[in-house]
Amino acid sequence: MGLFSKDIKNMEDLFVHTLRDIYYAEQQILKTLPDMIEKANDPQLKNGFQNHLQQTENHVKRLEQVFQSVGKKAQGVDCPAIDGIIEEANDVAGEVEQKPVLDAALIAAARAVEHYEMTRYGTLIAWANQLSKQDCVSLLQQTLAEEKAADKKLTEMAESQVNRKAA
Amino acid sequence: MGLFSKDIKNMEDLFVHTLRDIYYAEQQILKTLPDMIEKANDPQLKNGFQNHLQQTENHVKRLEQVFQSVGKKAQGVDCPAIDGIIEEANDVAGEVEQKPVLDAALIAAARAVEHYEMTRYGTLIAWANQLSKQDCVSLLQQTLAEEKAADKKLTEMAESQVNRKAA
Repeated sequence: MGLFSKDIKNMEDLFVHTLRDIYYAEQQILKTLPDMIEKANDPQLKNGFQNHLQQTENHVKRLEQVFQSVGKKAQGVDCPAIDGIIEEANDVAGEVEQKPVLDAALIAAARAVEHYEMTRYGTLIAWANQLSKQDCVSLLQQTLAEEKAADKKLTEMAESQVNRKAA
Repeated sequence: MGLFSKDIKNMEDLFVHTLRDIYYAEQQILKTLPDMIEKANDPQLKNGFQNHLQQTENHVKRLEQVFQSVGKKAQGVDCPAIDGIIEEANDVAGEVEQKPVLDAALIAAARAVEHYEMTRYGTLIAWANQLSKQDCVSLLQQTLAEEKAADKKLTEMAESQVNRKAA
């Protein structure tokens, strides 16, 4: 060990650290969605983002239940990954001229967000299983199922009308 | 339009911008993998990262073929998303004490990278289809299949021995 002690000593610590990472990420997504709703042009896309905003509020509450279940305070840690994904979404959206092209860019950004969440929830579920935290597994699986469904809808939109209009 | 003109005017521009984004991302991954190979403790994980390094070199070459096919110079653009994902991976790895826990953290980081690539390649394939760029679709699909296979292997590892040792 060097001059500084390392904070993540075991799988339980790594689980809680990653829980804090996705807790911060969900809160950043909550702050970003209203802007995406405003920018979206296609009514189906706008409506999809509105529904996802409500779902995201539930995801935050579910994470608070997971924190409670492991006896830890619900708090976030900096998550440069979601910050980068959101920063990039804003950069690209700011460069787009036409509304249908902006919709295509918003869908791509939302899919990147969903994939980040899917990978983190997938990892947390694997670790919760190994740590025999079955109540956490069940809560995390509910959210993962919703993230996957949201990604499926976005993929269908990307492959159908929104981009066709823009092409 | 404001004081500055916007650079992404149509779907073709958005396609090329996203191509430049993933081109930069693949190159950052190429720079990061040797460090992950060095840090990995489990021989299966170390070997998996080594194979993925070779695959990533091919992904870069395939992207260069896609650039050529659309008549654009192969060049990257800043991609805060992959920078954030890699920064976070390094931050977490630096906090981990035990080797098996470090392996679990490395797998989680690699899955986040794979998911970022999967979402970008998925989006590029949808757009290439709509823009009737069938040769690009075929090249991008080959890489997407390899990213999905890499993610599947990592998921299996996350759910099996590596983490079990750490728990």
